[in-house]
Formats: sequence, C-alpha cells, structure tokens
Amino acid sequence: MNVGLFDSFITRGWYDPEARRIWSDEGTLQAWLRVEAALARAQGTLGIIPREAAEVIARHTDIRGFDLARLTEEIAFAQHPFVPVLRQFEKLCGEPAAGYIHWGATTQNIFDTANALQMAQTHAMTLGALASTIKRFATLATEHRHTLQAGRTHGQHALPMTFGFKVAGWLDELARDRTRLEQRFPASFVVCMGGAIGTFAAMGERGPAVERLMAQELGLAPAGLPARSSYDRICDYVTALGLLAGTAERIAHDVVFLQRTEVGEVTEAFHLGKVGSSTMAQKRNPATALMLVSMARLMRSRVGLALECMVRMDEGDSSASNVNDVTLPEIALFAVGIAQTLGRLAAGLVVNPGAMDRNARLTNGLIVSEAVMMHLTESMGRHQAHHLLYEAAQCAITEGVPFLEVLREHLLARGQGLPAGLDQALAVERYTGESARLADEVVARVLRPPS
Amino acid sequence: MNVGLFDSFITRGWYDPEARRIWSDEGTLQAWLRVEAALARAQGTLGIIPREAAEVIARHTDIRGFDLARLTEEIAFAQHPFVPVLRQFEKLCGEPAAGYIHWGATTQNIFDTANALQMAQTHAMTLGALASTIKRFATLATEHRHTLQAGRTHGQHALPMTFGFKVAGWLDELARDRTRLEQRFPASFVVCMGGAIGTFAAMGERGPAVERLMAQELGLAPAGLPARSSYDRICDYVTALGLLAGTAERIAHDVVFLQRTEVGEVTEAFHLGKVGSSTMAQKRNPATALMLVSMARLMRSRVGLALECMVRMDEGDSSASNVNDVTLPEIALFAVGIAQTLGRLAAGLVVNPGAMDRNARLTNGLIVSEAVMMHLTESMGRHQAHHLLYEAAQCAITEGVPFLEVLREHLLARGQGLPAGLDQALAVERYTGESARLADEVVARVLRPPS
Amino acid sequence: MNVGLFDSFITRGWYDPEARRIWSDEGTLQAWLRVEAALARAQGTLGIIPREAAEVIARHTDIRGFDLARLTEEIAFAQHPFVPVLRQFEKLCGEPAAGYIHWGATTQNIFDTANALQMAQTHAMTLGALASTIKRFATLATEHRHTLQAGRTHGQHALPMTFGFKVAGWLDELARDRTRLEQRFPASFVVCMGGAIGTFAAMGERGPAVERLMAQELGLAPAGLPARSSYDRICDYVTALGLLAGTAERIAHDVVFLQRTEVGEVTEAFHLGKVGSSTMAQKRNPATALMLVSMARLMRSRVGLALECMVRMDEGDSSASNVNDVTLPEIALFAVGIAQTLGRLAAGLVVNPGAMDRNARLTNGLIVSEAVMMHLTESMGRHQAHHLLYEAAQCAITEGVPFLEVLREHLLARGQGLPAGLDQALAVERYTGESARLADEVVARVLRPPS
Amino acid sequence: MNVGLFDSFITRGWYDPEARRIWSDEGTLQAWLRVEAALARAQGTLGIIPREAAEVIARHTDIRGFDLARLTEEIAFAQHPFVPVLRQFEKLCGEPAAGYIHWGATTQNIFDTANALQMAQTHAMTLGALASTIKRFATLATEHRHTLQAGRTHGQHALPMTFGFKVAGWLDELARDRTRLEQRFPASFVVCMGGAIGTFAAMGERGPAVERLMAQELGLAPAGLPARSSYDRICDYVTALGLLAGTAERIAHDVVFLQRTEVGEVTEAFHLGKVGSSTMAQKRNPATALMLVSMARLMRSRVGLALECMVRMDEGDSSASNVNDVTLPEIALFAVGIAQTLGRLAAGLVVNPGAMDRNARLTNGLIVSEAVMMHLTESMGRHQAHHLLYEAAQCAITEGVPFLEVLREHLLARGQGLPAGLDQALAVERYTGESARLADEVVARVLRPPS
Repeated sequence: MNVGLFDSFITRGWYDPEARRIWSDEGTLQAWLRVEAALARAQGTLGIIPREAAEVIARHTDIRGFDLARLTEEIAFAQHPFVPVLRQFEKLCGEPAAGYIHWGATTQNIFDTANALQMAQTHAMTLGALASTIKRFATLATEHRHTLQAGRTHGQHALPMTFGFKVAGWLDELARDRTRLEQRFPASFVVCMGGAIGTFAAMGERGPAVERLMAQELGLAPAGLPARSSYDRICDYVTALGLLAGTAERIAHDVVFLQRTEVGEVTEAFHLGKVGSSTMAQKRNPATALMLVSMARLMRSRVGLALECMVRMDEGDSSASNVNDVTLPEIALFAVGIAQTLGRLAAGLVVNPGAMDRNARLTNGLIVSEAVMMHLTESMGRHQAHHLLYEAAQCAITEGVPFLEVLREHLLARGQGLPAGLDQALAVERYTGESARLADEVVARVLRPPS
Repeated sequence: MNVGLFDSFITRGWYDPEARRIWSDEGTLQAWLRVEAALARAQGTLGIIPREAAEVIARHTDIRGFDLARLTEEIAFAQHPFVPVLRQFEKLCGEPAAGYIHWGATTQNIFDTANALQMAQTHAMTLGALASTIKRFATLATEHRHTLQAGRTHGQHALPMTFGFKVAGWLDELARDRTRLEQRFPASFVVCMGGAIGTFAAMGERGPAVERLMAQELGLAPAGLPARSSYDRICDYVTALGLLAGTAERIAHDVVFLQRTEVGEVTEAFHLGKVGSSTMAQKRNPATALMLVSMARLMRSRVGLALECMVRMDEGDSSASNVNDVTLPEIALFAVGIAQTLGRLAAGLVVNPGAMDRNARLTNGLIVSEAVMMHLTESMGRHQAHHLLYEAAQCAITEGVPFLEVLREHLLARGQGLPAGLDQALAVERYTGESARLADEVVARVLRPPS
Repeated sequence: MNVGLFDSFITRGWYDPEARRIWSDEGTLQAWLRVEAALARAQGTLGIIPREAAEVIARHTDIRGFDLARLTEEIAFAQHPFVPVLRQFEKLCGEPAAGYIHWGATTQNIFDTANALQMAQTHAMTLGALASTIKRFATLATEHRHTLQAGRTHGQHALPMTFGFKVAGWLDELARDRTRLEQRFPASFVVCMGGAIGTFAAMGERGPAVERLMAQELGLAPAGLPARSSYDRICDYVTALGLLAGTAERIAHDVVFLQRTEVGEVTEAFHLGKVGSSTMAQKRNPATALMLVSMARLMRSRVGLALECMVRMDEGDSSASNVNDVTLPEIALFAVGIAQTLGRLAAGLVVNPGAMDRNARLTNGLIVSEAVMMHLTESMGRHQAHHLLYEAAQCAITEGVPFLEVLREHLLARGQGLPAGLDQALAVERYTGESARLADEVVARVLRPPS
Repeated sequence: MNVGLFDSFITRGWYDPEARRIWSDEGTLQAWLRVEAALARAQGTLGIIPREAAEVIARHTDIRGFDLARLTEEIAFAQHPFVPVLRQFEKLCGEPAAGYIHWGATTQNIFDTANALQMAQTHAMTLGALASTIKRFATLATEHRHTLQAGRTHGQHALPMTFGFKVAGWLDELARDRTRLEQRFPASFVVCMGGAIGTFAAMGERGPAVERLMAQELGLAPAGLPARSSYDRICDYVTALGLLAGTAERIAHDVVFLQRTEVGEVTEAFHLGKVGSSTMAQKRNPATALMLVSMARLMRSRVGLALECMVRMDEGDSSASNVNDVTLPEIALFAVGIAQTLGRLAAGLVVNPGAMDRNARLTNGLIVSEAVMMHLTESMGRHQAHHLLYEAAQCAITEGVPFLEVLREHLLARGQGLPAGLDQALAVERYTGESARLADEVVARVLRPPS
C-alpha cells in the first residue's frame, strides 16, 4: 500500500530504482547501522569502549537482523524514531556489547550522519547524469554553432542567433550548477557526533577525536562544532539544487515551446508505444520536458521548506528536524530525477534546422531591424535611426507592407535613398553576431580533460 | 528618495494613484486617526469618556495637524510605531480631552481596524476593475462563440474549439474570483477593539458595545472575540487574492503565447509611442500581459508570507504582525494592480480570427483524430479505433504523409475502405463540440442583472 | 521498498491507515474505475452506449482484476499514466463492451473526478477530527473560564487573563476553519467530464447530461464548464487547509511554550513507554505538538505549490497537473494528519493551574500596570498616568525595587499619595477583563445543536 | 506620498539611509548613467565610437540634468522603462554625440550592470555589519566560556552547557554566512553587455572586449556569455542571503525566548524612551529581535521569488525580469537591514548569568540524567542504565519526588546502592562537556588576522 510519488505505480518510473533504494526504509536503517558501527569502531580504537564490544557491535549491523514491522509499531508507541531500533540492536549484540552501543551519541547524530552517507551516494548519481548532459549539450552546441534560429525576447522575435548559441546558454548555466554541487557537498554533509546538545558531554575530551576518526572511515568531513541547530550547511547544498532545478525548468520550458505545433524547431524523443492521450491518437507531447518542469517545481517547494526549517529552537528542535528528516529524501530523489530526466531529454532531442530557418525568416526582415539601424548610423545617429525604424517597422506591421518597402518610403520622405549594402543588413543569416564563437568558447570551458 | 516599486519612477505608472494614496503614509495616518475618532465617539456615546472630550478628540483627527518628519524620528527612537503619534495627538487636543484619547485600546487595535478601512476602499476598486473585465470578456465570448481556434494541451494541438469557449474559461474562473472576494471581505476585515490582549480589560463590560458601535459607524463588522493573534480572517481574503492572481497569470500567459510571432492569434493593445526595445525598433511586446504575470508572482509570494505569519506567539507577536503590517499595503496595491492591468489587457485585446483559422488547420487533420476515432466506432470499438489511429497518426507525422492518405492505407490493410462521412469527421470547423453553447451559458451565468 | 513519509516505518504511525488506504495506489486505481463505471452507466442510461455494454463495464471495475506490477512497467514505457490501465480494462471486459469504455472522456477527467471521490472521504475524516477537537476545547474553555493565566505579548507578560479565554481563541479560529472547509468542499471537488479540452466534443450535446448524471450517482456537483485548466476550485479548498494548518501550528507553538521547563503551565499527554531521547532519560518532550508544527509546515509548502500550479498552459498542461496529481494525496493526508494530531494533543492536554497562577504573579504587579493606569485616570489623564507608570515600571525593573514602592515614590514626587483602591487595581486575578464571558460566548457559538 | 516599507515613516528607521539612497530612484538612475558612461568610454578606447563622442557622453551622466517627473510620465506612456531616459540623455549630449549613446547595448544590459554596481555597495555594508557582529559574538563567547546555562532540546531542558558555547554556535554559522557572501559576490554580479539577445550582434567581434574593459573600469567581472536569461548567478548570492536570514532569525528567536519573563537570561538593549506598549507601561519587549525575525521572513519570501524567476522564456523575458528588477533592491535593503539589526542586537545584549545558573538547576538534577547514566555504566551497560533512569526520572516527574531519592529506591530495588561519585555526576556545573574548549576553537577560527 503505497502513497508517495516515488513508490506509486503511476509515477515511480520517473525515479531511479537505485536512488529509491538508497533512501528507502531499508537504505535508511542500513545507513543508521553503518554509522553506529563506525561510532563503535572509532570508540574501540580510541579505547573509549572495549575493542571486542566494538567488533561485536559492528558485526550486527545488517538490517536483515531487524524486524521492520515490529519497529513500526514500537516507534509509533514510543513516539521516538530510534530507541526501538536500539532495543532490537541490543538484543542482536547480546551482553556485554549491548551496553556499549550508541555510546555518547544522540539520535539526531545518527540520523544526520546517515543522511550524509546516503546523500553522498545520490550526489554521485546526480553528478554522473549532469556529466552526460553536459557532454551532450556540448556536442549539440558545436554541431549547431551555425544553425540559424530566431532569438526571442518577451515572446517576440528579437534578433537572429544560432541554435548552438542557445544550447551554449543552457550549457554554461548547467556547468555552473555542477560546480556548485561539487564544491558544496563536502562542507554540507558532515559527521556530527557531539551528543545530545553538541558538547561531547558523554564522550568528554576524546569526543572530537571520535568524530574525526568516524569522518575518516566514512569518507566525510567532521562537523567541528557539532551543533544540531545549525542547518545552514545542508541548506547551502539544497539551494544549489534549487538553482539546478531552475536551470532544468528553463531548458524544459524552452523545449516545450520549441516543440509547439506552430514552431516545430525541436522535438523530444519519441518511440512507438509512447502515448500522448487516451483519446487523441495524434498527440506527441513533450512529456519528458513537462515532467521535468514538474520535478523542478516540486524541488523548489522543498527549498523553501528547508530554508524555513533552518530556524530551530535552542540546541535541538524536532518541529524543524522532523521536516528536514522527511524532506531530505525527497530532495535527494528529485535531484537525481531532475538530472536524469534532463539527461534523457538532452539525449533524445531531435533538432529541425529547416523549421528554425523558416521561422527565423517569418517577419520579412523585421527581425534584423537592429542590423538596419546599425547600418543607417553611417548616415545618421543611432538615435535617429531607431526613430526612423520604429516608425517604419510599426507601419509595416500595422499595414502589412514589407519592411523594405516601408523603409524606402520613410527614407525618401527624409530625402534619402536606400543606403548601399542594406540588403546585406537585411540578410537574416548574417546577423547572428558572435553566436558561433561564444558557443565554441563555452564548450571549451565546460569540457574538462579526463581526470 | 523613493525605493519601493509603488513609488519608483520606473514602475509607479502601473499602480493606481488613488490606491497608492489610500495606503500611503498619509492615508495610513489618517485611517489611524479616523479609528481613534470613532473610538472616542463610541465611548462618548456610551458614557465611558466625557462626551465633550470625545468631540474634541474627533475634531483633531486631521493629519495636517501632525508633523510627519518629527514622527519619523520619534518612532525610530521609541522603537514603537504609535506612541509618538499619540503624543502629538494629545498636544493637539489639549487638556482635559488629551487624557481620554486611545482609551482602553492598544496600538494593534488601531492598526488592524485602520487597515480594514483602507482595505475596504481598495477592495471596492478591485471589484470595480473586475466588473469591467468580466463585461468585456462576456462580450468577447459571445462575439467569438463560433470563431474556430485550435485547442491545445501539453503544448500540442489537441482538438478544435472556438475562441469564445476559451474566453468563457477565463470568464468562469474570474467570476468565481469575484464572488470569493465579495463573500469574504466582511468577515475578513473587522473592527477589533479588545485592548492589549483582547479581554477588553481596560473598558470592562462595555467593551464589546464600544466595538459594535464603532463597527456600525465605520461600516464594518465587529470582531466579537478580538484576539490579536488570530490572523486567519485576513488570510482568508488574502488567499482569495492569491487565486485571483493565479487566474490573471494564466490568462496573461495565454495572451503571451497567442501573441507569439509564430502564432499571432491575438495582440494586446498597441499605440504609437509604446516602445518594445531600446535597440530593436520592430518589437511589439505583450508588455501588459508580461507585467501582469510579474504582478501575479509578486502577489503569490506575499500570500505565502501571510500564511506563515498566521503563526503568532501567545496573545500578540510583533515578529509576525510587523510582517503583516508592511505586507498588507503591498497586497492591496497588487490586488488593484492585477485587477486593473487585467482590465486593460482585456479591453485592448485584438483578436485575429484569420490566424486562428489558419493555425487550426496546420496539422492537416490530425487535430480531429478524435472525431475520426468516434466516427470509426461504427465499424469497430473505440479502443480498436484508437489503436488504428495511433499508428496512422504517428506514421503521418514521422513520414510527413497526409493523415487521410495514411488512414486509407491502414484501413485497407485491415480490409476496410474509408467509411462514409469521414470527410465530415475531418472537417476541423465541425468538431468544436459544445464550445458555443458553453460560452453562452457562462456568459448568462456571470452577467448579473443591474442592481 | 518505501520512500515516502506516509509509508516509512519511522513516520507512518502519524498518519491514519484508512486515509493512507484511500490515497494509496490501490485506492486511486479503484477510484478511477469507479468513475469509469459511473461514466458507462450514465452513458448507458442516456443511450449513448449500449446499456449491456455499460453493465459489463461496471461489473469489471474491481482492482483485483488488474495487474499493478505490469501496469507500472507499461506506464513507464508509454509515458502515459492511464492508457495501460485502459488496455487491461478492455481485456477484462471483452468484446464488444471493451469498445465502449472511456467513451468521450480524457484521462484527466477520470483523474480529477476520482480525486474528488477520494477527497470526499478524507474530508469527512478531517471534519470528524475537528468536531472532536472543538468539543474538547469547548470543555476546556468552560472549565477554565476563571483559571488565572498571564497574557503575553511580544514574549513578555502583558495583562492577566484566564486559560479559558486562551482556549476560546483557539476554538474560535478552529471553528472558522471547519466552516470554511465545509462550505468550500462541494464547489471545489466536482465531476469534470468534458473530454480532451472540455468541449464535450466526443459526446456532443448529451455531454453535459452525462456529467450531471454522474455527479448525481457519485454524490458530487457537476463542473458545468469542465475546463481542465481551471484549478481555482481545488486551490480554494487547499488554501482553507493552509489556514487550518496555520491555526494548528499556532496552537502547537502555544503548547510547546507553555510546556517549557521554566513555564510548566500545560503538558501534553504522557504514557510510560513514550521516550524523549535515546540518551537523556528524563526527557518529556511535547512530541505531538512538535510533530503538529512539522505537519503544518509541510502542508504550507504544498499550498504554495498548488497556487503556483493554477497557472496552466492552454486547455491542459501536465507540467502543472503532474504536480497537482502527486501533491493532492499529500495534502489530503496532511489534512487528516493535522486534524487528528491536533485532536490527540487537545484530548491529552494536562493543565496545571498552579503553575499558571504562580507565573501570573511573577512580576510583582507589573503585569497589571494598565489596571493601575486606568485607576490613576481618576486623578490625572490617561496619558499622564501612562507617563508616570512608564517611569515607575522601568525604574522598578532596572533597580529591582517592588512596583508598589516605586509607584509611591513617583506619586509622592508629584505631591500625590497612593490613591484609594490601588491594592485592588494591583490584584492580578481581578484584571482578567471579559475573559470568562468571552469564553462562554465562543463556546455557545461553536457548539452546534446535534443535527 | 510613500507606500513602501523602506520609505514609510513607521518603518524607515529600521533601514540604513545610505543603503536606501543607493537603491533609490536617484541612485538607480545614477548607476544606469554610470554604466552608459563606462560603455561609451570603453567603446571610445576601442575605436568603436569616436573618442570625443565618448567624452561628451561620459560628461553628461549626472542625474541632476534629468527631469524625473517627466521621465515618470514618459515611461508610463511608452510602457518602456529606459527609452525615455535615452531621449533626455540624447538632448543633454547634443549632436553628434547623441548618436553614439547606448551603442550596441540593450536596456537589460544597463539595468543588470547597474544593479551589480549598486549591490557592490550594499554588499560592502552588509559585510561591515557582519564583521562587527562576529567580533562582538567572539567576545561574548570568550567571556562566557564557563557561564553555566541549561541546554534545551525540543523545548525541554536537556543537558547543561555554557552560554559561551551557545554563542559559539551562533558565531560559527554566522562566519559561514560571511564566507559564502564574500565568495559568491564576484561571480554573481557581473558586467553583462551582449546586446539584445547576448550575441554582441551590434558590436560584433569587439563586443567581448568592450565587456571586459567595462568590467575593469567598474571593478566587476565580465559575464563571458552575456545571456540575459541566466539568472542563476544572482540567485546564488540571493540564496546565500537567505541562509544569512535563517541564521539571524534563529539567533533572534533564541534571544526572544531567553528574554521571556519566565526565563530572563538575556535582555536586549533598553534605553529610557524605548516604549513597549501604548497601554502597558511596564513592557520591555525584545523589539529588535522581533523586528529581526520579521526582516528574515521578508527576505525568505523574496528568495523563493528569485528562484521562481530564474525560469525565463527564450532569450529574454520581462515577466521574470520585471520581478527581479523590483525585488533586488528589496533584497539588498533587507540584507543590510538584517546584518545591521543583528549587529545592534548583539552589541546591546545584556547577559544575566544569575538567571542562567538558577534555571539550569530548576529540575533538581534531572538535567544531568545523562551524566548519571554514563556514571552507572561502570556497574551496568549503557542500555540498562538508560532503562533504570527512564523509570526513575519519569517517576520523579510524575510523583514530584527528588531525582536522587527515586534513584536510590530504584537502585535498591535492584539490590544496588548509590555508586560512589554520584554526587559529582549530579553536579550540574560539571557536565558542560567541551563547551568552553569548543567556544575557544570557534573564536580562534573566525577571528581573522587584520589584513
């Protein structure tokens, strides 16, 4: 009996099974136990608990020894999410080892450190998917460095550009997203083992050493000041995911528009059997792009929640940490979901240069009014040229007359003829500016040498 | 020296001057004084304070008697937003009336009741603008009840419809927005006069009567239980504005898309002198629609803030009420801004039925695949028809062959000929369903008899 | 392998099993089939499809006939959430009935109407829990109408009141929440059966009658204009839940504060076996109140999401409806969770009048400075009294001298003695104002006669 | 006639006048002109426009030459925020220089680069305020490294700690906030000069050089790829401000609680003349802390808005940039407001070690149940000790018997006496763990050598 979107038969397919496993009940319980094992081992090494006890504890950290159904009931009864786990754990270890489990730790230490371990795994998956997408976009940017396309602002044709330039814009932003995630991860997800309020009271002076040793074993950094009420580190990573979501949503919206029936410049991958509608057989929806928008919105809503829950009472506050504990798995899964779905969208994107070319020429030259303006500056100032072209262009639109014709009339009225070379200024494909060069530059910048 | 968007020379023009006046410093101070006057008069009537004192107080409630510059400094020094006002007020009234000002009230009582008065004024402006827009949309829906247009889902042509039907969809939702605002206002903005914590302690038994009498004078309802920590009433109205913003944003997005260079089905009003770009003379941007989207987003962000600030400590909490006090004016101005801007957008909308017709026929019949499916059900089940048409349509798209042709082949392959009447099923203009009738119904429902 | 918070062994216990069942995969699929059955029956009755086909269809709408595992795979492959369901459904019904399934409907029609059915069920559960809570609060308000308690504003003691008055504040707001939910439900969740774009194209003239007939059978209202892009109706209900969340969060925060170690005025229910900490044996945390805050925050984040997703492209937009489809179950479960958790909190609340009384007297009379001020108005104006008391009170605080003593000195310095009756003004328990009467009034208003 | 919170006589005092000036209409217009001057100079240097024209242009960039009132009207008429500015600018420069203004640039280039200049100024103010606060907290942390205080989790006493440790927690997080802001600024606010769609079409090959030269002059970095639709850079800084807001809000909430009438452990600065209430003379509210919470909430609402507006159509989209243009000034002013208000709160904080000590001992030893547990592990396992202490502690609470006494009974029941040294374990002041050392470490880490 599943309720959540990651488990539901309707939506489960959009989320990576491995990522779901990592953040499942089983994955979480396993991560908790792995942290308890690391804690015991570190304490055994430092002589805080007997070395043999540490070994016994570490040996009993396989979730298969635990009874999830009973845990569910006991947790509900205790209104505490971890003490029932300890009870079963103690039984598995037996005496005297049982007496050394969870030594000097508090529940939230285990939860936060376990979350860090889980996040490290899905972080790697997210980065992997981003790497492929970046490569794919780099290829597209290069291939289409000269593919003419209409540049649009405020929903209207603005200037011509190339599709490679557009993709370079996606690429540049996405590469920044990747860098942000890479840079922030280590400081965001740490081993936090300061006990009930972060003072290492129960472990004493050797507490910080335990934290450092565990960090070494688990491949993470130690918290240093293990304050449970400081959530800024994790939030910093989460906001970087919020930016990734923004990037992905923007790209997805671009695809949805470019695939519009009236536009047809790109289409997302189609395979026979992909269905657009239960009633309209012809539908080829940009389902992947639309789902990507949805995921990005879901992610964004969780960013706000994470920021709100930075505010925590005193030295610990479950009214906030409860929220973070249930939201972090969602955030992790949305991250992988966004990165992989964007990857699929990129991988399958079909480009239609013919439609791009046709659309770029739709306005009969109005799209290059700026080129004409710059051309006219030889005979008048930029400002006069803008004035004149404004009148001419608006007249062309209102009266449906070709731009060149109106232009001629307006120049004539000022006692001027059409200046030489105007036809070149009106050649749409010549006014793409630095599109190709910029595309090349971005590609060079983001493609890293294999390390 | 202005900072805010409602005052800035760049954006001020989008907001109604009268609405800005109502919520300006002057408007707010005046509203406070009006509430103090009503309080004094009610208490004079009930014999709680001397009737002459009440008259003196009420006579000195013109803001021209107050020194705003000095108030600014004194408020900053006192870190209290109202006591300095009382000091000046007392001087203006003189003894002994000065001793009866603000009798039994607390600052937040004055602020909340004054806000209710201000909101009543802008509420009326919002409703006025909505009324005009509803009328305009009703006209458009009726005029274009038969104007063929492509219906689109998920960014792709779906089925034909009429533009009147589309407008009816806008209209129906907008009419619900209006009803919500009308119904909620009276319970949302009330006279709240229970004193420091809402117990009427300083006025005693006659407190509730004071509240009721003031309510009568001010044209509002009394709070009943004047709990300062209950913000659900105002939030209820604010969320209704959030819904209005959603409606407006949706309509605006529709217009932006329909005005796209490639689509051209509608355009928002243009006048010579409206400029689209400092460099691209040809630009005719849907600036009004785009600004409407922006306003709706701004409003939505304030709705979240209002909801968050429902949570208030104990019997009063300035960490929340500070936020509401500065946000409510924004909400009021966005409300008027949204309603009026939507009104202008609607009023100036230019419809291009030619483009609508042309676009509706872009897919060579694929847009009516459902009609064909329903037609084929005479010779096979709906499900078989969908199967067959799915294959035919996808084939038509992939191979660029006309739908009818592929259809003939696919039917032939099943040993069937083209069924009689298929050409009618393929007539795009015949498959608009109940578009016109539904448009009529909605118009009839929302147009109210003059009252 | 569960990920979601409603399924997880850690948090599942906080959510009603029946509510989870209603919104589970099984519950959802069953609701879809119930809608298909109602559609077929209505169409059979109206002669749109053969009556026998309708019966066959309706007979095969038990989810036990469906293979959820296969559906999961097929849905992922088709990238369509419903067509695979139709395929299995068709096989179950066999020919010729299979050909009449889903006649004239579109997927979103089935989803939205099914959601309405599911929501009706959890709506009833939410209302049920609210009713109990309202009753419990009414009892508390009455019992403690005279129980002295410190009223607090901005985190500081303000005036005395009674605990019954405080509870009345909770009660009044909660009763408004209930009314809002009751009033909005019928217009928010409707039968929407207009087909692909809402024009009833495939059903023709009789489409609206089908919708009405289904509505009758399913106990819901018909949409009227079945526009898929209008989400304001549902959002209206969702925002009312956002207000309920705000109320619940406020009450929960009150309880958390009142249970503070230093305050101790109330405690939430405790039972042996409820654990506060894995390391601090003494902990009795207000776990229920803290979880309630968490749920309210989770709900609020979904309200913003719902509002954002009101904005939908054209006649249908899965980038928005995807979000709503996965968020509505969460919203429904949070609603029940909030209502029931608040119910449990209220039911188990232990009141400690002794601590309330002790705290109310903590400030040695400063808490009734307003009473003294009102008392002094007999010999000077309210403003002079405030001045004098401000100086006296601040002096009492700074120098740690009893208020009465400082007061005497300050009056003496003005040549006045302590006015008669000042001891009464300083009697904390006498200055609770209309606390008790207001508590009674609210209780009378919210307790409805049994219907 | 002011509406906005930064201008209003009620709230203006909370915001720095210099910061308000920077983001005022005048400040903004001046920043625009400064960018136009830099553009002209760079183009003069590179020979794109005549050097003399560049000089004339640069000479006429004083806002005193402009007529703001007329601009307001013209902007409203043109529905364009910048072209009217250009018109006045052209008149001021005269021919032929007028013809070379704004060469190859688009409005948004000027706006974004001007915003970067303005933000650099307020960024410095924010950092300055943070530096003072960090210093002040470092002093407090050191001074109170041994000052006993109750550590609290979930609203209940947990373990003892020191106030220095608490402040170290604030300090550590705040120092991370500072580092984030410092590190992100340069990449977040750049010179973006690629023209209408970012292709440098009107400037051609030399465009990137213009951008670099301007960057050098203005002390900023060049955009590289001047994509107008990429807003991730600015959002990255904005989210760091969101984290700062979270930190500030958390500290402020701590102060509000610690100043509670029942707690009294700290108080924020008070001066005679600071007023808490218009009716309750005794009130000393934590007005600064409460306002800080309010500012943080206002900031957080803008973070969500900024993230939402990362999603931009095509190569430019005013529906998003309109929002960012009006929200960035607010964000900047909230940033300075938060940093300065936190600074004032920190500077004026009065610590009451007596109250801290008294509160820490309120529970008669229950606060050190963990210490007792660790002590008992010598005779039994940690788990058995927790069991025993859970029973003893709950019994002590329920029956109101001193902890030590119940403990003795429970041990006796197990045939054990009170272990030696238990009185030391029960000494609250001995169980503060590494509080002092951690405070010292954090102080050492965040106090940087003067550079």
